[in-house]
Amino acid sequence: MSQESASFTPSHPYFPTLLSIPHFQPSELPTTHVLMILGGVALVILIFGRQISRTQSGLDSFATCWFLLCFFIHVFLEGYFVVFNKTLAGKKTLLADLWREYSLSDSRYLISDPFTVIMEGITAAIDGPLSLVVVIAILNRNFALRHLAQLSVSIAQLYGDVLYLLTNYFEAYAYTHPHPYYFWVYFVAMNLPWIILPIFFIFHSWISITKKINSIPNPSKIKSN
Amino acid sequence: MSQESASFTPSHPYFPTLLSIPHFQPSELPTTHVLMILGGVALVILIFGRQISRTQSGLDSFATCWFLLCFFIHVFLEGYFVVFNKTLAGKKTLLADLWREYSLSDSRYLISDPFTVIMEGITAAIDGPLSLVVVIAILNRNFALRHLAQLSVSIAQLYGDVLYLLTNYFEAYAYTHPHPYYFWVYFVAMNLPWIILPIFFIFHSWISITKKINSIPNPSKIKSN
Repeated sequence: MSQESASFTPSHPYFPTLLSIPHFQPSELPTTHVLMILGGVALVILIFGRQISRTQSGLDSFATCWFLLCFFIHVFLEGYFVVFNKTLAGKKTLLADLWREYSLSDSRYLISDPFTVIMEGITAAIDGPLSLVVVIAILNRNFALRHLAQLSVSIAQLYGDVLYLLTNYFEAYAYTHPHPYYFWVYFVAMNLPWIILPIFFIFHSWISITKKINSIPNPSKIKSN
Repeated sequence: MSQESASFTPSHPYFPTLLSIPHFQPSELPTTHVLMILGGVALVILIFGRQISRTQSGLDSFATCWFLLCFFIHVFLEGYFVVFNKTLAGKKTLLADLWREYSLSDSRYLISDPFTVIMEGITAAIDGPLSLVVVIAILNRNFALRHLAQLSVSIAQLYGDVLYLLTNYFEAYAYTHPHPYYFWVYFVAMNLPWIILPIFFIFHSWISITKKINSIPNPSKIKSN
């Protein structure tokens, strides 16, 4: 290979290949370890969520697990990205390893893309704490707070994820590694839950609040009893 | 001026000056006419909104006017942008004149910027019809539907506008003409209502729904009456 053509070899595995990620340093931990640690933590959170919601209905127990997982992902994983986005590509931490791996499906995370940083900022600062409010309200059987918080956080999650997926789509997935694994497993499968479940929980809260309010007896009827 | 320096004269009045807007054609109608027609239409909508909500409370009448105006702006103005964004810069219509004028404060509207097109698409397709649902529910005194729709559309408006304002801010207002009029009147003043009023209506619906649900009498108490 001539020196000239060698100068076109990208210094990182991300797409588009000409993207400048000057402080990129490859991860030291193997990808499988990073994913197993993440999966293990997620499993512990789900088991804990199931434990604290044992006396709730099946659906409310599921919601507890989901929003507890959302809280941890939004505040710690996505919050970490927001705080350290400018130096993430070269950091030597487990969470930086994780973002370097996910960035194969979307390199905007390594270049402090304004939309990505702001959307993740809203997710970490608003969606994260609101997810914890949903969990606490479910456990306290506070119907109004639970459904208002559940509706609000689900709309915000859905809005953010639709914009996130479509902006990359509109640029012909320029930021996504062409290997199908990165597109289908990371970009599609890891984001799809935040499309499907928010839609479900929006309808769930919308219907629950409507039913509850429409169940209010007419004051004149109460008096006649 | 030499031929070489003449080649740097931008072919349009937008920022950044090197932005490529190949099909740009200046508006034929004077700016004052365009703004007066828009202001006139807005005034007619507000008077109509006030008329149809005369028997409502002051706040509900205000909400009727606001969400009626939102419906028209989201569906017709912003919907027009979404449908014609690729050819908008050269179109000879009143709404294209309007977008060319507004684009002095944000040229992303003339280059089919992916985030802007998708955010406006959500606004036109979801926020617009939902605004009309709020108006209809207020007039029909459908408490649950009105507040659920009002809360949902306000969260979506706030999310979209915060992202819209901050993405330009993160790029140091590169898309905004440096004259203070375009920044303060178009970019700030024309967007601020979609920050302030959604926050107000989110709290209004949140508190209204909470009060209504917490007012539900305990069934055992009704029986004892």
